Amino acid sequence: MSAVGKPLLYSYWRSSCAWRVRIALNLKEIQYDIKPINLVKDGGEQNSEEFKKINPMGRVPALHIDGHTLIESMNIINYLEETRPERALMPNDVLKRSKVREICDIIVTGIQPLQNWTLLCELEEDKRNEWAQRWIDKGFEAVEKLLTLSSGKYCVGNEITVADCCLIPQIYNARRYKVNLQLYPLILKIEKELEIIPAFQAAHPLNQPDCPEEAKK
Amino acid sequence: MSAVGKPLLYSYWRSSCAWRVRIALNLKEIQYDIKPINLVKDGGEQNSEEFKKINPMGRVPALHIDGHTLIESMNIINYLEETRPERALMPNDVLKRSKVREICDIIVTGIQPLQNWTLLCELEEDKRNEWAQRWIDKGFEAVEKLLTLSSGKYCVGNEITVADCCLIPQIYNARRYKVNLQLYPLILKIEKELEIIPAFQAAHPLNQPDCPEEAKK
Repeated sequence: MSAVGKPLLYSYWRSSCAWRVRIALNLKEIQYDIKPINLVKDGGEQNSEEFKKINPMGRVPALHIDGHTLIESMNIINYLEETRPERALMPNDVLKRSKVREICDIIVTGIQPLQNWTLLCELEEDKRNEWAQRWIDKGFEAVEKLLTLSSGKYCVGNEITVADCCLIPQIYNARRYKVNLQLYPLILKIEKELEIIPAFQAAHPLNQPDCPEEAKK
Repeated sequence: MSAVGKPLLYSYWRSSCAWRVRIALNLKEIQYDIKPINLVKDGGEQNSEEFKKINPMGRVPALHIDGHTLIESMNIINYLEETRPERALMPNDVLKRSKVREICDIIVTGIQPLQNWTLLCELEEDKRNEWAQRWIDKGFEAVEKLLTLSSGKYCVGNEITVADCCLIPQIYNARRYKVNLQLYPLILKIEKELEIIPAFQAAHPLNQPDCPEEAKK
């Protein structure tokens, strides 16, 4: 358990879903502790009986906060937004909110589940990059199109929103699987704006307590 | 375009994502027209240039409403909830809201994308059922566990919520792929409560204008 009152995030340095939540916590300036869950060691700590009691779905993130344990990244971010509305990550305008959610939903339902590590492990090793590329490209083509209408400095207008929290980890995965990001100039432009922001920097996999030394080289 | 003021839902009778939105529209007693998008004929109308202008992601549902076209099922339902709060599909209490979203998120990110038709078409035909079963079982085990804590008459307490809108289409898919639902007594109990409700009945694939005659036999 965490120190009194301080939220505890069950996280893995490279998990894009945990990363989304780390960004949101940082943007909202909520102090939290991290409990690393190693998704690859010994078949994955997320599959242990102990962790399944925390999250029966057996995946990160989970957040212990306000005396409760919440699961599912988008749920957690929405909970933070509802209980800590200061430093808002959603616009007030209903149509802009819808634009934010469209980008989030494409990433969290249409891209991430189809290229996450658990799924890729089902495929032969030499087919993984091509598979991941295909789904990321499909989703990023749509996101890039949506951004032509919605984006300003960030995904939706000139304020950072949940869409930006979802986009950055997905760009990292795109690079990991060698997607040609030059096809998505708006995505790259927004990444440039976001990567200089301390809340995003602190949430990066390389800055996590459980990031292995060899990954930092 | 739809008649003045009446929302137009781009739908496919068997799409579980379109079905979620149909249930929500019905529960909120919002009158709407349907524009069927045939996902299987000639490689799928969702992939046409014409439809890609409506939804660059090339999938249903999309909803034309209030002079705008919205995409992504969960975004649409959230928009309806924000703009038409009467007949609420989300509880007021923040923790209950979180419970609703946990169930939704497991289904929409952890089950549906991994067993939808587009993905199954990537697999050899004789492997499809086993694949779909595996992901549905993984998700339903978690949902069943969450329901032991959250459910009353419905998924979360005794009021119908978005979680119920997501659960029913997923149960249909579970049957389609021959999942042993006896393992999930709470899911089956909630289904029994929901299937007698007119809003759910009207949204069922068999009651859609584009349901082929042979499917009704």
